[in-house]
Amino acid sequence: MAPPSLDVVGIGNAMVDVLSRADDAFLQSQLLVKGTTALIDAARAESLYAQMGPGIEMSGGSVANTIAGIASLGGGGGYIGKVRDDALGAVFAHDLHALGVRYETAALQDGPATARCLILVTPDAQRTMNTYLGACVELGLEDVDPALVAAAQVTYLEGYLFDPPRAKEAFRRAAEIAHAAGRKVSLSLSDPFCVERHRADFRALVHHHIDILFANEIEICSLYGTRDFDEAMRAVRGECDIAVLTRSAKGSIVVTPHDTVTVAAQSVPAVVDTTGAGDLYASGFLYGLTHGRDLAACGRLGSLCAAEVIGHFGARPERPLRELAAKSGLV
Amino acid sequence: MAPPSLDVVGIGNAMVDVLSRADDAFLQSQLLVKGTTALIDAARAESLYAQMGPGIEMSGGSVANTIAGIASLGGGGGYIGKVRDDALGAVFAHDLHALGVRYETAALQDGPATARCLILVTPDAQRTMNTYLGACVELGLEDVDPALVAAAQVTYLEGYLFDPPRAKEAFRRAAEIAHAAGRKVSLSLSDPFCVERHRADFRALVHHHIDILFANEIEICSLYGTRDFDEAMRAVRGECDIAVLTRSAKGSIVVTPHDTVTVAAQSVPAVVDTTGAGDLYASGFLYGLTHGRDLAACGRLGSLCAAEVIGHFGARPERPLRELAAKSGLV
Repeated sequence: MAPPSLDVVGIGNAMVDVLSRADDAFLQSQLLVKGTTALIDAARAESLYAQMGPGIEMSGGSVANTIAGIASLGGGGGYIGKVRDDALGAVFAHDLHALGVRYETAALQDGPATARCLILVTPDAQRTMNTYLGACVELGLEDVDPALVAAAQVTYLEGYLFDPPRAKEAFRRAAEIAHAAGRKVSLSLSDPFCVERHRADFRALVHHHIDILFANEIEICSLYGTRDFDEAMRAVRGECDIAVLTRSAKGSIVVTPHDTVTVAAQSVPAVVDTTGAGDLYASGFLYGLTHGRDLAACGRLGSLCAAEVIGHFGARPERPLRELAAKSGLV
Repeated sequence: MAPPSLDVVGIGNAMVDVLSRADDAFLQSQLLVKGTTALIDAARAESLYAQMGPGIEMSGGSVANTIAGIASLGGGGGYIGKVRDDALGAVFAHDLHALGVRYETAALQDGPATARCLILVTPDAQRTMNTYLGACVELGLEDVDPALVAAAQVTYLEGYLFDPPRAKEAFRRAAEIAHAAGRKVSLSLSDPFCVERHRADFRALVHHHIDILFANEIEICSLYGTRDFDEAMRAVRGECDIAVLTRSAKGSIVVTPHDTVTVAAQSVPAVVDTTGAGDLYASGFLYGLTHGRDLAACGRLGSLCAAEVIGHFGARPERPLRELAAKSGLV
């Protein structure tokens, strides 16, 4: 078996974000739950968009954001995800290629448009997301390139992949390929509602197939059906090699079978938009892990990357993360 | 004649911006002149885009940015400009409608795609623009709705309209309609290269048909073929009712036949991206003018709006300008 030529390959729902500012009254009028992600159909996407304020479009997708962050840190990333051959699909592909990410998934020639996520950012900097899956529902087994997966030290998957039915198979196949090649498999739980939709699947998956788990406080509590974070932390210990639990301003906790590492959040002059915070934390953590850093250093890199992305609008880094990490002495 | 129901109607090249960070070496390698706008064809747009970094897409277009700013100040705005019925065209229309701007120009059903402007922002916060005109070349006389033009106190036109050949006719017709209805006509010179391309036309236009002129230092010097700003200022005096000359950090000067009003620039903690600075200055100035403010107050409103837009990435205001203006006691 050749040594891995990439650090992380990600598989996720490929989408373009449309970010707009909104107030709490607007969320209420649209029956949206702040801080979560809702799945919406094309008609709802159109009606919500018509009522939203002016937007900014930029590439998104949880795992794609993470891979973009890894590339921005100087790491080697690959990505698998489905777009349509339309204008937004071209934007999505361009933005990964411009960072040097290996992304070769065939674009749909017809059928649903490239997925988009309508993101409402409230004055408290929280984001509320509304995803129209579009072309993502066509991601399937045939899109998982075994050579690409086997080439990466870590295969990183998002829980959101369990929403489009065929993607779940792609997810499972990628995990098998990675493990067969002696690589690690990592999962992000994505969203509390997503955990609710797939709780049993996710629990079994974490127990049997996941080496590195990312979850925020609400997601890990939801996974183990508790409101008590300490209880959730006890429940996850030993279920996988590394469970990384993020807690916003309270920092993060890395749980291994025999250790608990606490990492402080990096302070930010002004939190502008939390979109992408978890995704970019994962960028830093996985970059560290695939470059032989200890868990505390991985967490600090995660905090650094998350701090960059919440300091501005949008879920992709604005500044080269490698420079920021170098300034902080972390690379 | 009914009293005007709108403050400003703008006519311009409707486009979506693609903003990306770049360094000076990249500009040099692409033979681009910093701070200016180049016209590019579809093939060049594709090749430049392929070489650019990751981008942010948002509605742009010089006059459209100005009208968006006027709407954000609480003013009544209308817009005429041509997009294709494609994804970026829908984004452009959405973003104006979301601000309450009257925008009803029929989208092209076939032919060239919605225009885009590839904008490279260098570390000094300067922007260098590359415009693919796309659907804008189809804007023509038939798109100028006489009732919309007559409904506005001011018709605001961009020099860039002289690039697509048919738009020039639309420009002239709109000016005629506005004057016949007893309204004012305003022009922005847009860009020094644009002035070079159309110098004779622009001089005649300013002399005969323009009431309110906007130009930056380089543009006004180019218009009168001098390197000396004071000479340009002397040359423009009396050519139109009001000439508004912007000078970046040096502020702006308002020249009328018998007066000269000097306006300070508003200081900004950090200049992030100068894209839209002139456009948003015009928003503030024209809002003031159509609301009965004196020239000094108009200039201060212009400085306020320009300061907002250079403090972040992109050419459209991020914060409601009305709130900012209210805080500063300007509305």
